[in-house]
Amino acid sequence: MARPRVVVIGGGFGGLAAARALSGADVEVVVVDRHNHHVFQPLLYQVATAGLSPADIAAPIRWILRRQANVRVLLDDVVGVEPAGRRVVLRDSGPLDYQALIVATGVTHTYFGHDDWAGHAPGLKTLDDAVAIRRRVLMAFEAAERESDPARQVPLLTFVVIGGGPTGVEMAGAIAEIARQALRDEFDAMQPEAARVLLLEGGPAILPTYVESLRASARAALTSLGVDVRESAKVTHVGDREVRVGDEVIAAGTIVWAAGVQASPVGRWLGGDVDRLGRVAVAPDLSVPAHPEIFVAGDLMAIAASDGQPVPGVAQAAMQSGKRAAKNALARLAGRATEPFRYRDPGNMATIGRARAVADLGWIRLTGYPAWLAWLFLHLVFLIGFKNRVVVLVQWLVAYVTRQRGVRLITRDS
Amino acid sequence: MARPRVVVIGGGFGGLAAARALSGADVEVVVVDRHNHHVFQPLLYQVATAGLSPADIAAPIRWILRRQANVRVLLDDVVGVEPAGRRVVLRDSGPLDYQALIVATGVTHTYFGHDDWAGHAPGLKTLDDAVAIRRRVLMAFEAAERESDPARQVPLLTFVVIGGGPTGVEMAGAIAEIARQALRDEFDAMQPEAARVLLLEGGPAILPTYVESLRASARAALTSLGVDVRESAKVTHVGDREVRVGDEVIAAGTIVWAAGVQASPVGRWLGGDVDRLGRVAVAPDLSVPAHPEIFVAGDLMAIAASDGQPVPGVAQAAMQSGKRAAKNALARLAGRATEPFRYRDPGNMATIGRARAVADLGWIRLTGYPAWLAWLFLHLVFLIGFKNRVVVLVQWLVAYVTRQRGVRLITRDS
Repeated sequence: MARPRVVVIGGGFGGLAAARALSGADVEVVVVDRHNHHVFQPLLYQVATAGLSPADIAAPIRWILRRQANVRVLLDDVVGVEPAGRRVVLRDSGPLDYQALIVATGVTHTYFGHDDWAGHAPGLKTLDDAVAIRRRVLMAFEAAERESDPARQVPLLTFVVIGGGPTGVEMAGAIAEIARQALRDEFDAMQPEAARVLLLEGGPAILPTYVESLRASARAALTSLGVDVRESAKVTHVGDREVRVGDEVIAAGTIVWAAGVQASPVGRWLGGDVDRLGRVAVAPDLSVPAHPEIFVAGDLMAIAASDGQPVPGVAQAAMQSGKRAAKNALARLAGRATEPFRYRDPGNMATIGRARAVADLGWIRLTGYPAWLAWLFLHLVFLIGFKNRVVVLVQWLVAYVTRQRGVRLITRDS
Repeated sequence: MARPRVVVIGGGFGGLAAARALSGADVEVVVVDRHNHHVFQPLLYQVATAGLSPADIAAPIRWILRRQANVRVLLDDVVGVEPAGRRVVLRDSGPLDYQALIVATGVTHTYFGHDDWAGHAPGLKTLDDAVAIRRRVLMAFEAAERESDPARQVPLLTFVVIGGGPTGVEMAGAIAEIARQALRDEFDAMQPEAARVLLLEGGPAILPTYVESLRASARAALTSLGVDVRESAKVTHVGDREVRVGDEVIAAGTIVWAAGVQASPVGRWLGGDVDRLGRVAVAPDLSVPAHPEIFVAGDLMAIAASDGQPVPGVAQAAMQSGKRAAKNALARLAGRATEPFRYRDPGNMATIGRARAVADLGWIRLTGYPAWLAWLFLHLVFLIGFKNRVVVLVQWLVAYVTRQRGVRLITRDS
């Protein structure tokens, strides 16, 4: 009899953890992703701000899983799931039957119904997004250098980051630092220090999942870099080079969207309930109640942790749930009982410019330089691939010493 | 009185050498390029074959020239030159007057009148070109993995490189090595070793500027990597996934153009004669005879070396001529006599896969491992930027030990 097939959709943190947890099991594993590479999302903002190259934070999924004999990797797009027939439909390869399915397709950004904002305020979810944002940020300074009228330089040099979560905080800090440090002394007509960076958070506070003392530290660090942090600042319109907050119109050459997320559409195809963001309501064992052979992991799942709070959409939660989904899928195939998912929260951290960060590791809270060192260390440890670790370390060391950013390339401009 | 303005068009090897040679002179220097970065072209094929990241072989022109007080850098497109009015017209910044002009806009690839071939067989001149070729090469293996019929895998896994100069030789060797080494053991339905790589040279021999003994060594190295080297193989047609050589039709999923070059259109705007490739016929001092305040450097110039042979379109010739053009421009502005350009040929080298190369340094000819070490050393020395040198060295060391390629990213696929 053929071994049962477990299909894993998604090669992010959740899908990779699931595939690895199936290592050695007597099943055939097929991992499907629309990209050939896994991206280390926590460092995506560094690609968008010219600190790292795309390849530094990514690795081919095929290469990551090369030593795992029972895994096959397919670069393909999932265009449908048929829970009743137990098969996935792939755009190029056609239908693919499964005995168990693990879905870890994550979330993408959403504009809360204003899809026309997307062209003006790109979001940051893929390497292509990051390179496109890098291009916009660097082009803004070049456009200002060509402009001899200082009054017309102001909007060109105004950067608005919408959304005060960790990504928004890290983006705003990095853009401010580019202006004040990396580009210093390289321009003639334009003073990069004149750049304005605004961080707009619609809720009452940036970093809403952090404790107030760390938020205050983050605010202070951002302000000292020259970032104008505005909380309870609800964006009512995004247009061509302008953002409106209530009655105020902010003319801004560069707008970055770090606000809302919505679940991948795959979540709606699984025959279960989804919440208002499209995330799948899963049973405690991460399965879809109507189809117990389907499991959901990572940002796509909607589930509460033991404290009643929703499990956050972070890398650690995706890895832990991917592993649990894989073990439960094996249990289901073997007719054994599944176990509930228990999220162990390892804490939060965000970095703000050079040598500053905030970190809440549960047992200890850090700010400033110690938080930044902890951030550096943990990100290097979790990065996949020896080459990536060495290259990222070199780039960070050089950046720290020279205050430069190593990847100031404007590409895709033809 | 205002200082005279010297405009340098192009931030490649020629333009950068000219700008640097104007350091400290009592002139205002404006460097214009349509890209914000200088590219180390000799390593562009390594970006196209997933060995290096774009940022590893590039650096912002503005950053390279940051310590030179008399230089201004503009990111802009030159849309016209008016030699009679002594001004350059820029797309975004408008007209720019000059007292002396140095043109180093180089060459691009040409399809010998068959512009419709361009979409089927991309060329390799910019970082964007390199990323696009990398995508095609890596996608070919992924498409073959999705194809269960071995007969239909053959064309998908056939790679044709058209043009047997150094770029074509290096591309063909690197693609063969990806198939045989880097992707080994990572695929299931497809044997990457089954890939066919053809190198088609229309002339009687590959590496036409090399001596026959080195050519023979290059041929042997390519053949041992599995490359099918065909000389006197004139391509008569390039279509969708097919190349014709005489009556033979080669079905090939991936076709790379490394054959013809033609000069940048700027050469035709200078009021002088151009040769059939559009290169500018310059006086011995590199000036345009009808406009002695205009100088041409690098691949765009047509001039003979002391041996009567044309000066080749290589980085060393561009750097030497850029420096001479700058010195002669200063001489002209000061009313002093200019000096003729004398090309000192430092030799040729090309690398073929891992740990093999051919090098002709004039006083010594090397093949195999010693040639490869010389190639490594010289390319690291000439690469711009400390960070780039360290990161490239790390990538090469890891690649050498693991036989992997560090940048296997398929991007720009949306």
